[in-house]
Amino acid sequence: MSTPDSRMTTVGILGGGQLARMMALAGAPLGLRFLVMDSVADACAGQFAPMVVGDYTDESALAEFASRVDVATFDFENVPAESAQWLTSRVPVFPNPRALATAQDRLAEKTLFRDLGIPVPPFAVIDTREQLDAAVAEIGTPCILKTRRLGYDGKGQFRIKSPADIAAAWDALGAQAAKVGLILEGFVAFERELSVVAVRGRDGEFRAWPLTENWHVDGVLSASLAPATVDDAMAATAISHARKLAEALDYVGVLALELFCRDGELLANELAPRVHNSGHWTIEGSETSQFQNHLRAVLGLPLGDTRMVGQACMLNWIGAMPDANAVLREPGGHWHDYGKQPREGRKVGHATLRADSAQELIAVLERAGVALGRETQVAPVVVRLQG
Amino acid sequence: MSTPDSRMTTVGILGGGQLARMMALAGAPLGLRFLVMDSVADACAGQFAPMVVGDYTDESALAEFASRVDVATFDFENVPAESAQWLTSRVPVFPNPRALATAQDRLAEKTLFRDLGIPVPPFAVIDTREQLDAAVAEIGTPCILKTRRLGYDGKGQFRIKSPADIAAAWDALGAQAAKVGLILEGFVAFERELSVVAVRGRDGEFRAWPLTENWHVDGVLSASLAPATVDDAMAATAISHARKLAEALDYVGVLALELFCRDGELLANELAPRVHNSGHWTIEGSETSQFQNHLRAVLGLPLGDTRMVGQACMLNWIGAMPDANAVLREPGGHWHDYGKQPREGRKVGHATLRADSAQELIAVLERAGVALGRETQVAPVVVRLQG
Ligand SMILES: Nc1ncnc2c1ncn2[C@@H]1O[C@H](COP(=O)(O)OP(=O)(O)OP(=O)(O)O)[C@@H](O)[C@H]1O
Ligand SMILES: Nc1ncnc2c1ncn2[C@@H]1O[C@H](COP(=O)(O)OP(=O)(O)OP(=O)(O)O)[C@@H](O)[C@H]1O
Ligand SMILES: [Mg+2]
Ligand SMILES: [Mg+2]
Repeated sequence: MSTPDSRMTTVGILGGGQLARMMALAGAPLGLRFLVMDSVADACAGQFAPMVVGDYTDESALAEFASRVDVATFDFENVPAESAQWLTSRVPVFPNPRALATAQDRLAEKTLFRDLGIPVPPFAVIDTREQLDAAVAEIGTPCILKTRRLGYDGKGQFRIKSPADIAAAWDALGAQAAKVGLILEGFVAFERELSVVAVRGRDGEFRAWPLTENWHVDGVLSASLAPATVDDAMAATAISHARKLAEALDYVGVLALELFCRDGELLANELAPRVHNSGHWTIEGSETSQFQNHLRAVLGLPLGDTRMVGQACMLNWIGAMPDANAVLREPGGHWHDYGKQPREGRKVGHATLRADSAQELIAVLERAGVALGRETQVAPVVVRLQG
Repeated sequence: MSTPDSRMTTVGILGGGQLARMMALAGAPLGLRFLVMDSVADACAGQFAPMVVGDYTDESALAEFASRVDVATFDFENVPAESAQWLTSRVPVFPNPRALATAQDRLAEKTLFRDLGIPVPPFAVIDTREQLDAAVAEIGTPCILKTRRLGYDGKGQFRIKSPADIAAAWDALGAQAAKVGLILEGFVAFERELSVVAVRGRDGEFRAWPLTENWHVDGVLSASLAPATVDDAMAATAISHARKLAEALDYVGVLALELFCRDGELLANELAPRVHNSGHWTIEGSETSQFQNHLRAVLGLPLGDTRMVGQACMLNWIGAMPDANAVLREPGGHWHDYGKQPREGRKVGHATLRADSAQELIAVLERAGVALGRETQVAPVVVRLQG
């Protein structure tokens, strides 16, 4: 890699996974350079951007990182808020560390939702076994015990189907109470999961992509469909929730708000203070991708158009990549291999299937599903598209 | 940059300019790694891919390059055909060196056009001043004296408006006769310049993007419009010319055929054995970009859909980048800064403006043209769109 030149802006990204990688690829046409910081040297963003290898709490690594970038942002939302705060004294950081800190803590996040009038499932902080008993009695079963911090892809969660599961839940997560905190949430028997992926500029301009519907398997995103087949009023409500949050946090960059839809009502689940897996379809399915718009926001450039081009379905590849040909063969079939080693449970890539109509998308999904041996993965999306 | 891992295919690119850069960015989602070879260390592709710095005739540099890649291709068409040939003994090279050699020599190229029944302007080889006199008499004026090899962006050309210019033409280029050869071509008073950008797979599958109309200023591409506003029969003829050439050369990868349209008839100008400036609009304006399809072809993957999404106009930035905001502000406005130092006559970037209709594209072009102070650059495109 050649050395950065002074004419060019260098964007620092904390975290060097697929989000950083796709951000660098989307930012290159803007004439940007990137510097990625990650604790592991083979982070996949390092294939297309220079790296600083170091722990996020290592001040000398952070100082080196800061000295080489013009602005910093995140691929990884669990960068210690103190590290982010420390960075702000050296270089502009977007989103701001307060927004990051809020989204890192399920309690702070849910409290903010409630304060802003955004409906949430019932929840309670849990510090002790006694509090857990009491909260389960109050919230009722089923419910979910979650770590307040550091959860991702459904990790750090225990489902309590009946009071008989309380002991097992405490066994599994009780030790975390003192470390990262715990929260109990009512289980939402949702009809759908939705997400708003939106962007807010430095000047406060706000834009959202069309609402996305998401399907999770074992707590990990499996498929996304955009636009979600919901009525305009619901889409508008969802987007106004995201906008309120972005404004309350003085947020700059892309964020995602995950929502449950139950009995036609929206309940907020969580806020991701970064580009989001449910927005990957925007690379081919929208005029401007979430990755480029995140960078435009962070740099104070005009935000790009978030309108869709047709309909898009994103399929996540977990553990190992399937055969690319099944997707590349399809018109509107796009492949994303993150260049990672296969490993159980790891997000290693995704595909986006784009089509001009629902009928066409159904046909593509059915063919690709069979060719990939992933009929089960595409099935709920096809059912939804069939109305 | 982290070290390539054995699971991943590494594509070697000879030449590290903007074409290599955009190829690497388009190939990353396919899980590819890249290695770029260029004679200068600050070649702009080196910002996103590792490099081998060395001359294309330097066997030890070529050997290092070959040892680190799985397949090789070109960003630069004037890589010595012998170097390309030498590489083929070590690694697969696409397009094949014969195709490269043909496209490197205007005489071989035009002879092939003629042999395949593709109309060409009259032309003659020029080795001596006497031959030039005779050829000008035969072909008539105006005509153009060109170097057979190593010309690009209109360099190595002299326009002979009347026989009185012959002496000046010979003064300017005569010394090249012994070095790279000369050719005299009849000047075509064209109504339009068109190009076919097309791709041919390893298995012979052929696909073309919609025809593009191009405008040159001082011999350098200034603007492209796709789809070109020509009738279907003309588009089909142009594409069939490109197909014949690709098949005759057993071509693998993307190629561009430049054509003049005069009195409704197509005359072939030249063949570019690589992704082409007039195909840059495919990044946002087509389902699959020329860059990704070139890689798909070279790797034997299924070719992607070449259909357009709306209408697109590409504007080239020569010398220095204008203000990005004027383009980023527009819906459908996309920016490409190649990360190069400004320098007179250098291609430093481009913009693509995409819209769903001609009317919308006209509006976008007019606004952006004024904001950029480039009314003259957009004017011919707007006139064409107005029909
Ligand atoms: N209260 C709940 N009711 C019903 N289902 C839930 C609830 N909380 C979580 N889930 C399910 O588990 C999934 C993952 O939960 P959550 O979003 O809280 O975890 P996460 O670890 O932050 O995951 P990610 O980072 O992938 O969003 C949800 O998308 C949903 O399918
Ligand atoms: N015979 C001709 N008649 C009329 N115009 C011509 C002729 N040859 C070249 N031109 C004009 O000059 C431009 C550049 O010429 P040509 O394509 O031969 O050069 P080049 O150096 O290979 O350029 P590039 O690499 O940009 O295609 C053409 O696109 C056309 O506008
Ligand atoms: Mg979640
Ligand atoms: Mg040309």
